Amino acid sequence: MKLEDEILNQFIGPDNSNRKQVEKLIKNVTSQLLDFLSNAEQKPTYPTFKQLDCPHFQIQEKPLSESKIHSNLQELYDLSMNSANPNYIGHMDSMPTLWSVIGDYIASAINNNLLSLEMSPFLTQLEYSLTKQFARLFGLPEASGGVMLSGGTLSNIQALLVARNIKLGIKNGNVFSLKKEPVIFTSEHSHSSIQKTGMMIGIGVENVIKIKTDENSKIDCNDLNAQIEEQLRLGKQPFAIVATAGTTVSGNIDPLKDISKIAEQNNLWLHVDAIYGGAVIFSKKHKHLITGIEQADSISFNPQKWLYISKTSSMVLFRDFNKMIDSFRISAPYMKEQNAYVNLGEINIQGTKYAEILKLWLSLQGLGKSGYGKLIEYSFHLTKIFKTEISKRPFLKLVCKTEMNILCFRGEPNYLALEKFDTWNENLQLYLLSQTDFFLSLPKYKNNLWLRAVLLNPFLTSKHIKNLFTHIDYYENTNKNR
Amino acid sequence: MKLEDEILNQFIGPDNSNRKQVEKLIKNVTSQLLDFLSNAEQKPTYPTFKQLDCPHFQIQEKPLSESKIHSNLQELYDLSMNSANPNYIGHMDSMPTLWSVIGDYIASAINNNLLSLEMSPFLTQLEYSLTKQFARLFGLPEASGGVMLSGGTLSNIQALLVARNIKLGIKNGNVFSLKKEPVIFTSEHSHSSIQKTGMMIGIGVENVIKIKTDENSKIDCNDLNAQIEEQLRLGKQPFAIVATAGTTVSGNIDPLKDISKIAEQNNLWLHVDAIYGGAVIFSKKHKHLITGIEQADSISFNPQKWLYISKTSSMVLFRDFNKMIDSFRISAPYMKEQNAYVNLGEINIQGTKYAEILKLWLSLQGLGKSGYGKLIEYSFHLTKIFKTEISKRPFLKLVCKTEMNILCFRGEPNYLALEKFDTWNENLQLYLLSQTDFFLSLPKYKNNLWLRAVLLNPFLTSKHIKNLFTHIDYYENTNKNR
Repeated sequence: MKLEDEILNQFIGPDNSNRKQVEKLIKNVTSQLLDFLSNAEQKPTYPTFKQLDCPHFQIQEKPLSESKIHSNLQELYDLSMNSANPNYIGHMDSMPTLWSVIGDYIASAINNNLLSLEMSPFLTQLEYSLTKQFARLFGLPEASGGVMLSGGTLSNIQALLVARNIKLGIKNGNVFSLKKEPVIFTSEHSHSSIQKTGMMIGIGVENVIKIKTDENSKIDCNDLNAQIEEQLRLGKQPFAIVATAGTTVSGNIDPLKDISKIAEQNNLWLHVDAIYGGAVIFSKKHKHLITGIEQADSISFNPQKWLYISKTSSMVLFRDFNKMIDSFRISAPYMKEQNAYVNLGEINIQGTKYAEILKLWLSLQGLGKSGYGKLIEYSFHLTKIFKTEISKRPFLKLVCKTEMNILCFRGEPNYLALEKFDTWNENLQLYLLSQTDFFLSLPKYKNNLWLRAVLLNPFLTSKHIKNLFTHIDYYENTNKNR
Repeated sequence: MKLEDEILNQFIGPDNSNRKQVEKLIKNVTSQLLDFLSNAEQKPTYPTFKQLDCPHFQIQEKPLSESKIHSNLQELYDLSMNSANPNYIGHMDSMPTLWSVIGDYIASAINNNLLSLEMSPFLTQLEYSLTKQFARLFGLPEASGGVMLSGGTLSNIQALLVARNIKLGIKNGNVFSLKKEPVIFTSEHSHSSIQKTGMMIGIGVENVIKIKTDENSKIDCNDLNAQIEEQLRLGKQPFAIVATAGTTVSGNIDPLKDISKIAEQNNLWLHVDAIYGGAVIFSKKHKHLITGIEQADSISFNPQKWLYISKTSSMVLFRDFNKMIDSFRISAPYMKEQNAYVNLGEINIQGTKYAEILKLWLSLQGLGKSGYGKLIEYSFHLTKIFKTEISKRPFLKLVCKTEMNILCFRGEPNYLALEKFDTWNENLQLYLLSQTDFFLSLPKYKNNLWLRAVLLNPFLTSKHIKNLFTHIDYYENTNKNR
């Protein structure tokens, strides 16, 4: 029995049997892809939604021809989110660096497994080294280190699992065996993954205690203190505080220094969710924004957002890396033991992992710290322009102080009744997308609908922003005169 | 302020500003990559290990030149696991299909977010459709469906979280609030991720009860019944059984039909970890091996193994998809609500996800079900040859019945004392790798060291296998005559 060439040619023959064919296919795919991406500014930021489903995606008995696959790919491009278009400013989904794309391409092709050093002798070492360097950039001590995970939710989960195991003294994770009911504290504006984590790690969503925020969406430390006291009074066992550096909707930063003191006073684990905002460490001018983060026991950070790495790219960093290992490690007896490097699969949630570290490494090489600094500072520069435009218009209102490159605002024209504001803004968002191709997201926040701009795209300029506000003015004018 | 071209050229300019440069870089990278992969058979399966670490991986202030990045990539290739070499038969890490590699490349470039329909209008629908089709292929009913996750551990975790929430009636995940201590049952040979899951979801590693196995590494149903009874007697609350279809070390399959009856009788959730073995559904000849799986409440399955998809590619399928949603969903209030498709980020562990569904879809198009059937059957064909070679040699012993394409065996030469077997096999593994370039893994199993071959590589032939055994004979002979 021998496999037919038709099947073997679906692989990169390790016997040099089909290199030319492979090169040709990659060239064709690249060409089609760049027809889309190099012209992304000319393509709609959003396609018209098309319901597909079965039988459209039916798995076929026989292979499809290459040309049929290409036409399926064309449909993918035509119907996908186009975040490379500078008019796409609605979410934290940036366009990736070219080296990031190449990193995923190579990681996939060589298919090493970050489960163990044996299966990724180069890449395991790279992950150890880069995560540690990031920990140091955040100001964590020499004993710090971290792991990469496939997305920020996983990073938050691992941080709080480790906090739970260490602070409650349950390395085996038996929550039922505890004497007191465990609780954690976080801002009412923290990411929903913190609630998800509460559900997952066995403490329960209701034991993720929401702390009130001030007028700038930052944790109110008085309320934090009061809630800790209240939970103790109720006989519960507080074990962690989650602070946020860059909230999802408005990019605000909790008072990290004050919170770290409260954590210390109460012997609580301090986790900082810097998933979005952590990127400012690359800007000499703006890194002061997250001062206090160096006091954290753990930090989660996503290069997949403001560092322009394609999804997924997330890390969780620990002040005391060995303590993390001790409290978390589940050995895989089928893997070779390694002395110098604990197999990564034993000390992260995932086990088998792909080499998402590669694209981060390549992008850091392509841009250097200095290039990242400039990108971050450019975002702040655009933010200033955007804010000025808002402040020029009395009918627009910012939700609170803008601290990063996320602007959350809405129209509250004085000729409208309060209850009509939501509809006005909803229609403005629709108008911008359908008539002008600008995409802003429309989050619900403090019971109202808001417009949200995330200024990430490096090809976004003041011209785009001014153009956007011309359209907003037009909408406002048209509606006023109705 | 404007970003310099040096920085903008690190991206695929959406304004058609650098397409030629981008094409050239991708061409160069591809060429270097294929110098490695198209000649993988000529390159060592394992490089000599080289300790790197800092300052080798130091993040630089300034960008590196393209040629320096290329030389860093060359070092990556030279020092990585080479699973494309047909002599690499030690782990479940297969070489990926070319379409899989292209899928990752495209997924990264368009960077859609599987968090929500809004951020991946095409790909969300694709994930819904393909996972449902897989659920049906496994024989689950019309109401079934699933989600993709970044690795098998996550799939097992999500399955058992849902089982916990549903069977124990704690949608919020509060394990502390339970009246009785929850326990689950699994084979002593199940994957270590089941223990990890026990730690993570708050039930505790000690409440993952290990069931004895028979001489073929399959769950002993008498012991399973006895353990359930025992746990009830202890006042504990059993809620799930995890059966395995394709154990990690020897590829055995638990008696799924019998176990499903026991689960039903005791009102326990049945999760089948078919992470490895699930691929046999594509072979008409061999899919009977996992008969009974259609009774499962949930199934985890990894295309990243025997379906030749690059890491990561994993899915978890549920008999009753809506019930899963009800028991698991945590809403993200900042995302637009969708009626037709619940945002995937709200119903899986990860939240933001990359489009790992794309490479699976493309590979299914390239190979068709029929192509996958042939690949699976070819693996079984090679297994037969391999087994025959073992049976020809009285000094070799299989650990138990071989049911899939994983052969776990070792030398027990009659001229050696029992306690010397481990060293003999350890040295054989080293000899094969260092003198002949064959890589077999060396798991610890039932307190002994074994050699393990996983026959996945489509370019592996009977010639390679015969060659391997010639070397084994040489080793045996040399050692005998010493």
